[in-house]
Amino acid sequence: MERPYTPLRIERGTGIVVLDQTCLPHEERYLEMRTVEAVGEAIRELRVRGAPLLGLCGAAGLAVAAEDRGVSDEALRTAMDELDATRPTAVDLGAALRRALTLALDAPEEQRRDLLWDHAETVARERLDEDERLAEMGAPLIQPRWSVLTHCNTGALATGGRGTALAVIARAWEQGRIERCYATETRPLLQGARLTTWELQKLGIPATLLPDAAAASLIASRHVQAVITGADRIAANGDTANKVGTYGLALAAARHGIPFYIAAPMTTVDRACRGGDGIPIEFRRESEVGGFGETRWAPAGVDAYNPAFDVTPATLITGIITERGIAEHPYETGIAALG
Amino acid sequence: MERPYTPLRIERGTGIVVLDQTCLPHEERYLEMRTVEAVGEAIRELRVRGAPLLGLCGAAGLAVAAEDRGVSDEALRTAMDELDATRPTAVDLGAALRRALTLALDAPEEQRRDLLWDHAETVARERLDEDERLAEMGAPLIQPRWSVLTHCNTGALATGGRGTALAVIARAWEQGRIERCYATETRPLLQGARLTTWELQKLGIPATLLPDAAAASLIASRHVQAVITGADRIAANGDTANKVGTYGLALAAARHGIPFYIAAPMTTVDRACRGGDGIPIEFRRESEVGGFGETRWAPAGVDAYNPAFDVTPATLITGIITERGIAEHPYETGIAALG
Repeated sequence: MERPYTPLRIERGTGIVVLDQTCLPHEERYLEMRTVEAVGEAIRELRVRGAPLLGLCGAAGLAVAAEDRGVSDEALRTAMDELDATRPTAVDLGAALRRALTLALDAPEEQRRDLLWDHAETVARERLDEDERLAEMGAPLIQPRWSVLTHCNTGALATGGRGTALAVIARAWEQGRIERCYATETRPLLQGARLTTWELQKLGIPATLLPDAAAASLIASRHVQAVITGADRIAANGDTANKVGTYGLALAAARHGIPFYIAAPMTTVDRACRGGDGIPIEFRRESEVGGFGETRWAPAGVDAYNPAFDVTPATLITGIITERGIAEHPYETGIAALG
Repeated sequence: MERPYTPLRIERGTGIVVLDQTCLPHEERYLEMRTVEAVGEAIRELRVRGAPLLGLCGAAGLAVAAEDRGVSDEALRTAMDELDATRPTAVDLGAALRRALTLALDAPEEQRRDLLWDHAETVARERLDEDERLAEMGAPLIQPRWSVLTHCNTGALATGGRGTALAVIARAWEQGRIERCYATETRPLLQGARLTTWELQKLGIPATLLPDAAAASLIASRHVQAVITGADRIAANGDTANKVGTYGLALAAARHGIPFYIAAPMTTVDRACRGGDGIPIEFRRESEVGGFGETRWAPAGVDAYNPAFDVTPATLITGIITERGIAEHPYETGIAALG
């Protein structure tokens, strides 16, 4: 699969080059980063985002720290704390930083710099390989000349590899199966309008943007033959938390008898969580709903309901595409069978 | 029912005063209009909008023309043509203008000025009375301490009277039945975020704004006990066209077993149209989806799917509230019984 853009490129021994996602879709700007401060600023200002991509950025960030600050225990620990504090709720970032730090501290100082670059390159390769396997698994589910509907952003910009749901769509496109990809705008943060349409354009896939509210009528009108989205967390029974709006798409897909697929790596499965009721939902700030960026359209002081995710019950999900295969009903055993 | 704001006020013998809806919700600005040009500009620039309110504006606009241009056949015909051309697709505007013109031309010139003001005042009173009756019919359906969800803008700003769905909610609020009103933002034109929340604030009703994509999870979470929306056209079998997004709300309401009501005047019923398949859907321009106002967030050149309406099948509608009573299943006979 070609990649006409790279959200994070490792320049061994020098630094990293990051595609500034805050400038998208209007400008494709790459930023070279050679200091811990620069990497931290990029994470804090959301120039890099998406959980798996932040994991890669954490691993690479510690290699940058080794060049910038040296490889003493003290220097690396301080750099790790600084980077971890930039987005305290980003679990993948913290986990990746701790993994890289442990690796380095376990080695003699003279090997640490090489080890950290090796590790960052390994993580980057893992991201690509995992997404590639997931795309291979999912693409055959798309029948020739189907149009599909997706939600939020699940491409390379989110994972640092090829993406999840969007990688399945891109692979199916390369195989000549996709007629068109419809992308919801995904309010309130508009990841679909800003990022997914941009990725689809770069990949050369015919793309149509729609308001979230138009998805049910799009499905009713038979313009799409499948819905495919990513996932933030999948319970052991297959109930799936994903970007708010996913549940409504699943309801419409079920009503009109078209398949609804989830595409996500096995790391998204939380076996300790038995069902959707056990998935905590993050609520975000009201100001996101009353406007976008500097533009405000709601009256001052209005209350807002702004959940980041919703939960789609397993009964509405046709299949869960992972890098190890496709889980089907009943998901308790279907997911467990993938290991 | 109190009205703490007036979208269009008639000043007999002088002109009309219009609440400039393009300044909402940030500023409550009233514009005095004494010329055909001023009224035409207000319609063209969407300072007044909403089908029934445009009807009132048409009737009042011809009275303004009589003051501004005189009452000759020639003067009134020219004024009518000018006003009608400001929004060629607004059926209610054209119909109201033709009705007022016919009335005037049928009378001797010396009576025309008075006749046109009488007529404008009658139309304004009709709007208030019809909405009031509709609100009276619908309010008892709301059980005490319910929270309700509504879509788009269906208040006084839309009808010039009290509104439709929002008037039902306001009346239920006055009767102590309403706990809170949730309003979808209603992309792409954001009538819910800009206008409905503003009306709710003015009416003193606790209001919460949400992205359209969050409605299904709001309903799933049991925060609301009913959904109530307006309608643009109702077929003889009860299938209802309304602002895009309505169908998705109806699907979620049905899934979670809460009532879904339509509130609309009998003039919205199109008996010549047997079912939803016969309702033509207007598609609007792509640029509405790629941003809002001057703010653009989608990449240039992206295609968009932008239907203004969707169709909710009658099977998902618990009841249709009109000024003559509430129609229930089966709607063929239920609607016909209301006359």
